[in-house]
Amino acid sequence: MADNTLKVVSTAKAHGGMQGVYTTYSDACACEMTFAVFVPPQALERPCPVLWYLSGLTCTHQNVMDKGEYRKRAAELGLIVVCPDTSPRGDQVPDDATNWQFGKGAGFYLDATEEPWNVNYNMKTHILEELPVLIGKHFPADMSRQSVFGHSMGGHGALTFALANPDRFKSCSAFAPIVQPSSADWSKGAFARYLGKDQAAWRAHDAVALIEDGATFPELLVDQGTADGFLEDGLRPWLLEDACKAAGIPLTLRMQEGYDHSYYFISTFMDDHLDWHAQRLGA
Amino acid sequence: MADNTLKVVSTAKAHGGMQGVYTTYSDACACEMTFAVFVPPQALERPCPVLWYLSGLTCTHQNVMDKGEYRKRAAELGLIVVCPDTSPRGDQVPDDATNWQFGKGAGFYLDATEEPWNVNYNMKTHILEELPVLIGKHFPADMSRQSVFGHSMGGHGALTFALANPDRFKSCSAFAPIVQPSSADWSKGAFARYLGKDQAAWRAHDAVALIEDGATFPELLVDQGTADGFLEDGLRPWLLEDACKAAGIPLTLRMQEGYDHSYYFISTFMDDHLDWHAQRLGA
Repeated sequence: MADNTLKVVSTAKAHGGMQGVYTTYSDACACEMTFAVFVPPQALERPCPVLWYLSGLTCTHQNVMDKGEYRKRAAELGLIVVCPDTSPRGDQVPDDATNWQFGKGAGFYLDATEEPWNVNYNMKTHILEELPVLIGKHFPADMSRQSVFGHSMGGHGALTFALANPDRFKSCSAFAPIVQPSSADWSKGAFARYLGKDQAAWRAHDAVALIEDGATFPELLVDQGTADGFLEDGLRPWLLEDACKAAGIPLTLRMQEGYDHSYYFISTFMDDHLDWHAQRLGA
Repeated sequence: MADNTLKVVSTAKAHGGMQGVYTTYSDACACEMTFAVFVPPQALERPCPVLWYLSGLTCTHQNVMDKGEYRKRAAELGLIVVCPDTSPRGDQVPDDATNWQFGKGAGFYLDATEEPWNVNYNMKTHILEELPVLIGKHFPADMSRQSVFGHSMGGHGALTFALANPDRFKSCSAFAPIVQPSSADWSKGAFARYLGKDQAAWRAHDAVALIEDGATFPELLVDQGTADGFLEDGLRPWLLEDACKAAGIPLTLRMQEGYDHSYYFISTFMDDHLDWHAQRLGA
């Protein structure tokens, strides 16, 4: 049962701040969950704003911690960066081990409604409800200032979380997001299994559909590599561009020449995104 | 047999430059060897100087490539960064799988003289003789401008390579180097097995001994974390400090409060080291 405690897995000084890894028992996911928190040096003196980074398919909290290159600039800007996992974990959690687009590593930032997935696959409640309580309790965080960004499946998570919660998040950006998962080759199968066959229920977890249905946000930043092998089938940023244009949401969509879908792409534009959020968080 | 060709394992655009991974057959190591090369954007217009990064125990070329955070600043400064492996590899290469301080992942940047290790464990010749030919042939490199740095065992490699080749390397620095491997708990066993029991032969691969025996270098930069768990038994930077003082070699030794032995430490001070080398390379 959740008791709002966390266990320290590791901490290390980095760029003047502290990179930690923690676990907590999640009621929503009915398992122990791991997440990473970087605390900048400014937090010794004052509460700092919180930037959530949501990772892509197959990732854990660790990929961006190793390869994202966010700590130097976050330490300069005074941002707490929280990196959750991408799915429930553990031997008792059902999975489809042959499918990297479903099950473990592929939680899609939603609450599943279909059995047996609905027992554990509730990443939306874990990240939007459980973790903020923990972060606010255990870290020097100003929870009135939160922003969110992410990569690929995590870009989908960032966009949908922000569009559904515009009062909570001051800003939102994404690297190569899945903008319309209901129709993308690599996500529609997962949506059917997590949420059932009635596609009306999918729209609350689809950025383009949310915008079509009236959700809005002050402005969005999206970077997308032109050499990304998933551009045509999975990502299709032009769908978000069309939806934002029709809804009057200012979108800065930058097509980055020659970049692929990897952390080499993410790390290259990480500082730009941190600057974007810091400005809007008053960091 | 070596034919000065390389095979491309992967390339990806990063920070405006290109991070590649390559393999080549090494005569010195009698096996296929992997290495990483980052080429900055300036190399499209002019040959760029080469900075060698030598990794620590248990690492491959990949650890620093993932966690070192060197690409952004190297791209700004116009530095080619080459990251070799730390030992020969392959099923036919003898190893001591129970010992992380010897065998695979622990080549110690020397040429072994003892059987059976002398067949493959010749990282000194691989890095000082073979790889420079390949880099000069296949990359837009100005081989008249080379520098070297490294971490832990790789800091030992950087110091000994520079002290033994002061005409080749314009500058040398190290993160938490093993400064006197002949006497350090975690290296003297490897030296005995690679080089034999006559410790006179060890001195050519020991930075403090090289300095005591008359080797010199214009100046050295060393960063060392005060929370490094290996400080007392393996690293002991004060031995280098004493040797440099006696020999009149200017050493900038910075004890970094609260940092451990990990890539969190390395990445924090990476930019400082890149700046140090760029200045001395005329980059």
